[in-house]
Amino acid sequence: MTQMTEALKGNITPEMETVAKFEEIDVNKILRGVANGTIVIPKNVNRNTDVRGIGTGLTTKVNANIGSSTKIEDLDLEVNKAKLAVEYGADAVMDLSTGPKLNEFRKAILDAVDIPIGTVPIYEAGAHTLNANKEIIDMDPDLIFKVIESQAKEGVDFMTLHCGITKELVPKIQSQKRKMGIVSRGGTFLASWILHNDMENPLYENYDYLLELALEYDITLSLGDGLRPGCLSDASDIPQIQELVNLGGLVKRAQKVGVQTMVEGPGHVPLNQIKSNMELEKTLCHGAPFYVLGPITTDLAPGYDHITSAIGGAIAASNGADFLCYVTPAEHLSLPSLEDVKEGVIAAKIAAEAADVALGNEKALKREEEMADARRKFDWDKQFELAFDKSKPRVYKDKCEIEDKEMCAMCGEFCAVKIAKNDF
Amino acid sequence: MTQMTEALKGNITPEMETVAKFEEIDVNKILRGVANGTIVIPKNVNRNTDVRGIGTGLTTKVNANIGSSTKIEDLDLEVNKAKLAVEYGADAVMDLSTGPKLNEFRKAILDAVDIPIGTVPIYEAGAHTLNANKEIIDMDPDLIFKVIESQAKEGVDFMTLHCGITKELVPKIQSQKRKMGIVSRGGTFLASWILHNDMENPLYENYDYLLELALEYDITLSLGDGLRPGCLSDASDIPQIQELVNLGGLVKRAQKVGVQTMVEGPGHVPLNQIKSNMELEKTLCHGAPFYVLGPITTDLAPGYDHITSAIGGAIAASNGADFLCYVTPAEHLSLPSLEDVKEGVIAAKIAAEAADVALGNEKALKREEEMADARRKFDWDKQFELAFDKSKPRVYKDKCEIEDKEMCAMCGEFCAVKIAKNDF
Repeated sequence: MTQMTEALKGNITPEMETVAKFEEIDVNKILRGVANGTIVIPKNVNRNTDVRGIGTGLTTKVNANIGSSTKIEDLDLEVNKAKLAVEYGADAVMDLSTGPKLNEFRKAILDAVDIPIGTVPIYEAGAHTLNANKEIIDMDPDLIFKVIESQAKEGVDFMTLHCGITKELVPKIQSQKRKMGIVSRGGTFLASWILHNDMENPLYENYDYLLELALEYDITLSLGDGLRPGCLSDASDIPQIQELVNLGGLVKRAQKVGVQTMVEGPGHVPLNQIKSNMELEKTLCHGAPFYVLGPITTDLAPGYDHITSAIGGAIAASNGADFLCYVTPAEHLSLPSLEDVKEGVIAAKIAAEAADVALGNEKALKREEEMADARRKFDWDKQFELAFDKSKPRVYKDKCEIEDKEMCAMCGEFCAVKIAKNDF
Repeated sequence: MTQMTEALKGNITPEMETVAKFEEIDVNKILRGVANGTIVIPKNVNRNTDVRGIGTGLTTKVNANIGSSTKIEDLDLEVNKAKLAVEYGADAVMDLSTGPKLNEFRKAILDAVDIPIGTVPIYEAGAHTLNANKEIIDMDPDLIFKVIESQAKEGVDFMTLHCGITKELVPKIQSQKRKMGIVSRGGTFLASWILHNDMENPLYENYDYLLELALEYDITLSLGDGLRPGCLSDASDIPQIQELVNLGGLVKRAQKVGVQTMVEGPGHVPLNQIKSNMELEKTLCHGAPFYVLGPITTDLAPGYDHITSAIGGAIAASNGADFLCYVTPAEHLSLPSLEDVKEGVIAAKIAAEAADVALGNEKALKREEEMADARRKFDWDKQFELAFDKSKPRVYKDKCEIEDKEMCAMCGEFCAVKIAKNDF
């Protein structure tokens, strides 16, 4: 059984109840959303998690990517990143480990936190291939499915699978002459494999088998955007949109058999193209939840891509994106530190909240009103309690000791709220 | 003479030439924009500055607010903030000092940097009043004009003047029962003064005299939004919009006599209301450049309001705002540190660039393409040179020593760009 097969039968699951309670909306709306594929509840049958719903009508959710690289491999650090991401409000964590001990990392992360965990199984297949001194283009297709099955057994809740890069698409990528080529690791692996073996993408060719595995463990498919743009001028080009068209067809096949499915999206996108990208996904992909990475809206700010993507994420989520993958200040440069993870999660939470307010989400509006009330009353403790970061604002406030509770060091006696409060 | 009176006569000034060169566009476009009031070039006749144009068709500009408060008064610190803001790309600095030595601060800042400097003269008038142990409601209206004239003589390039809060508007603010009342300091001073003296706003009543002073020194008027919302639920309400209507009338009077004028805008605005706020200003205020503070798109992130406002600023600027006032992480809590000023400027520069790309500005697009080329070529030095912050990304990159230039610690051997570069 999957959440979706149950929903299609009209059965309300405990997970749907949990989501309804969290969102403060009627459980029948969750039921209908899961049934028609506009909501997913990632939860592997082999894992107990604090579930979250992702999709239309729900608050925007945030994912934090963590995990080792071939250059930095520190288990405690990655586990602590997962815990920190949860502490600051991440709704899901993806373990993107690619270092030699990646299996150990995944297991430790699955144990460490109780929110949905996602992976990109082709990284493990790629790592096994590289570790055996072979090249990516020599990767055994069977290995990919073995990895998917073993990770499913372990309890991975959602998986990024780049099923939409087809053999037909490869020459189109080449003739497009993109500035940045392919910037998705999974996308590169598969496109190179297809090119050099002159064979179809195994994840596309054996999609029915993939659906069987997903049905067995209720893995939520996160159909990867292997051809997402890697710079602003590559955005919304033929390869990107053709892959999205392909994904739309695959969503339909998954939804038909009751496999929960979401779709991944860009990437680097100029601000004025974000809305149409969101609308296109919703129409082409039958309303499947859209999970976006960024979008990054300028490439001129390495070291600050949590901000370039908070701008894109807010616009995306207010136009249909349901799930924001955080981007940290370390993006394009290194693995994030603990501080970077915190900054990344908070920036994504800000984007999600700004979008939820714009969409009129009642939970979001209530929080905003509570903050305004606390500000008006100079109730600093309440302000800090409501803040995404409960300690940083207190540090600012306490830098300068002021006896009068009704001001801060920014305006002092010139505080407008203080002066106006009796009259206005 | 002012830039506008010259433009109305068809005379191209050296300042217009400088702006055209900076923007890489035809000087006749600048001439027409200054003549019809859609572009301003703030430059006091008594001061030599590296001028910038602000307005339609030009790159989005960024202002940094600095200055003492009654609680923190450190001259060197504020001068260093001004210099740092310029270093990171601010196009203008406003000295908002309100501490006892505010005159000394303004003079030091005018001397320290060679970009346009703005002030809010009513702060000085308010400070003199408070220092004389009187209340704000006892402020002498003549004092306001004396301050404006003396600051104009010193060379202040643009001044925030809250001319639109009229006597008629005061009961409307009261009956609106806003959650946050008035949050503009100048706005509070004037609304309280009007209420308690039962007299008209001196800046409104003596607007013709103000225009005479502006003409004499070519002060660019920045018509203040004293009734900007202080929380999301106060946004776009009757007092805010009525004040904007008033400002529209005042813009017309200023433009008629050749006084350069821009209009200030909110503040705290839900993301979905930003576009209409921008369009409204452009129609009501006869195309005058719009100078926005934020807008802040969620109130839940004290300590991170550079991000909440980068989101709002990018959407604002891509919908007509011409000039973004930075917001620092210290907003609502304290005066910014040097680090906060840097963070604030960079966040605003990111918002400005994202908007300029969206608007198809050729200078902005060219920079983005150069960055993409540098990324593709793994030319790290060029990437850091093009970045808003030239040192922070290098620190990230160098955290982990890697012999192969064609990768970073984030993806290591899994680098998509490296793997794909020969084929795609």
